[in-house]
Amino acid sequence: MATQVIVLNGGSSSGKSGITRCLKAILPQPWINLGVDDLVDRLPPSLTDSGSGIAFGQRGEVEIGAGFREIEAAWTTGVAAMARAGARVIIDDVFLGGGASQERLREHLQGLEVLWVGVHCAPDTAAGREIARGDRAIGMAAAQAETVHKGVLYDVEVDTTRTESLDCARAIAAHVG
Amino acid sequence: MATQVIVLNGGSSSGKSGITRCLKAILPQPWINLGVDDLVDRLPPSLTDSGSGIAFGQRGEVEIGAGFREIEAAWTTGVAAMARAGARVIIDDVFLGGGASQERLREHLQGLEVLWVGVHCAPDTAAGREIARGDRAIGMAAAQAETVHKGVLYDVEVDTTRTESLDCARAIAAHVG
Amino acid sequence: MATQVIVLNGGSSSGKSGITRCLKAILPQPWINLGVDDLVDRLPPSLTDSGSGIAFGQRGEVEIGAGFREIEAAWTTGVAAMARAGARVIIDDVFLGGGASQERLREHLQGLEVLWVGVHCAPDTAAGREIARGDRAIGMAAAQAETVHKGVLYDVEVDTTRTESLDCARAIAAHVG
Amino acid sequence: MATQVIVLNGGSSSGKSGITRCLKAILPQPWINLGVDDLVDRLPPSLTDSGSGIAFGQRGEVEIGAGFREIEAAWTTGVAAMARAGARVIIDDVFLGGGASQERLREHLQGLEVLWVGVHCAPDTAAGREIARGDRAIGMAAAQAETVHKGVLYDVEVDTTRTESLDCARAIAAHVG
Repeated sequence: MATQVIVLNGGSSSGKSGITRCLKAILPQPWINLGVDDLVDRLPPSLTDSGSGIAFGQRGEVEIGAGFREIEAAWTTGVAAMARAGARVIIDDVFLGGGASQERLREHLQGLEVLWVGVHCAPDTAAGREIARGDRAIGMAAAQAETVHKGVLYDVEVDTTRTESLDCARAIAAHVG
Repeated sequence: MATQVIVLNGGSSSGKSGITRCLKAILPQPWINLGVDDLVDRLPPSLTDSGSGIAFGQRGEVEIGAGFREIEAAWTTGVAAMARAGARVIIDDVFLGGGASQERLREHLQGLEVLWVGVHCAPDTAAGREIARGDRAIGMAAAQAETVHKGVLYDVEVDTTRTESLDCARAIAAHVG
Repeated sequence: MATQVIVLNGGSSSGKSGITRCLKAILPQPWINLGVDDLVDRLPPSLTDSGSGIAFGQRGEVEIGAGFREIEAAWTTGVAAMARAGARVIIDDVFLGGGASQERLREHLQGLEVLWVGVHCAPDTAAGREIARGDRAIGMAAAQAETVHKGVLYDVEVDTTRTESLDCARAIAAHVG
Repeated sequence: MATQVIVLNGGSSSGKSGITRCLKAILPQPWINLGVDDLVDRLPPSLTDSGSGIAFGQRGEVEIGAGFREIEAAWTTGVAAMARAGARVIIDDVFLGGGASQERLREHLQGLEVLWVGVHCAPDTAAGREIARGDRAIGMAAAQAETVHKGVLYDVEVDTTRTESLDCARAIAAHVG
């Protein structure tokens, strides 16, 4: 059966966005992308300036409140509906809760043909790239590099530490039905 | 019944984005926003470089192909599903087909409590703001300023020609249930 | 004698960037722009995370340290040198020190034909636009709207409260030699 | 004598910006950066829409007209003046003319202590990264990867093909006086 959703899970600065752009360029069918960062970018002040929403600490910690969880669930329901309606969607996510986060997402994607992809990157390398990109709070990359993969099951795993985005994308594309 | 979706329709450079940010800042409940521009930003090269997708002409014309229509329908299905799942969503759109575009969107939003908002701006003023913002193809503002409102029915109408975004947002907020 | 430098002084969110883009579009000669924001964007972490550089407070205050002053002086010397070498330069600035800031800049621009432009905007209006643009610390617009003009002498003054960027640019262009 | 200017020369998508951000983060003194891209971003429509300015072709070609050369010379004079006035400046450039471009820049920087850095990247790798970043015309990376280094003399050379930006920055920093 044809793949309907590609989920890329990896820590901050692990290289998910670059892989996503390459996938969109090389896959023969049209794919769009919507990730957790897109939701965060769209949150109202009431969910970024309060304990109920999402907050980023000085050393890369991410704190999630009930208000964020609620809107995230509705958001994900919608992304799944896009896929069910025929849009091929790449979801890039950061499983802060590891396997538990995957379970939550798996519930939303029930009935869809999903390709689960682990995007690994050595913590030191990701931390260096975080400095090089210059638009992320320092500390997130190292804090998330390994924890986001705990207890998560994948169909494909790529490692950007020594593999370019385009080559990772090619490896993933080989599994897209 | 509580408003679940706010649709802002207006031509390019009519001021929808500024009003959206103000709405998110002043409405007591958390609202997110997803518009047609967000979809366009996420299209793969196969839908921006071919006749099947969307193309922007030298003088502000927008050409829409079957491939874009298809993915747009799936996208909109998903946005409606977000709203049905409890996310309050501001949709900013450009009804290139006027009333026919509204009908298409209305189908997708069936059963939801929608506030339809017309965002007007005098063509000359919008054309001037297009130059001032510097990130849009020159000509779109003038070409779309009036045509996008043809045959469209609204619950509220605002005009940014002489009213600030925040004041327009306040006028709209007064109609949000 | 031909104008070599246009200085736009106004508070945050008063509309300087929009006017700058319009000026570049309508002036017959090629003009480039370099402002204090461009310098701030290029500062290294050592000047944005320490007392020596520049810091933005929670309510829109801006604190300037000796390290920032030093590099700003060298930067401005360079911008003046560009103009002396034949580049027409629009400098957009925020005279936090009012007339004293103007004196400091005037020193750097000695010998150049400068058009001094005051960009006014009613504090409430600027504060509303600050919300609408969504990328500035809330409070700066109101805090700076009037203080930056204290003791400053202009060749032209425009007010964006009720005049569009393009019309302001036209008024300024009429004074460009 | 203390280094006053660091020049990074490399083709499009060779990794200059990432190295620049890392250098600013690790060098003990404050450094700012100004490159040819910053000038291009600031050009008025009259120099981006006409034969006199700069134009980017469909396959990554860059065409330079007399109007661009003129303003570029004034710009570079100003950047050199910033360095002479005490600002430490990282200039990132693309020597489309190879050694001849270096000579032109060397003239402007006369009397300054300059560290010349070659930023290499294998053409295929740079072309892949061009797809992954998604904001550059496809073809520039491959077209420029080798030609920009022809006849250029360096104090340090780094290769981002297999070395991270941060490690390249460390290698360069070891030569900064």
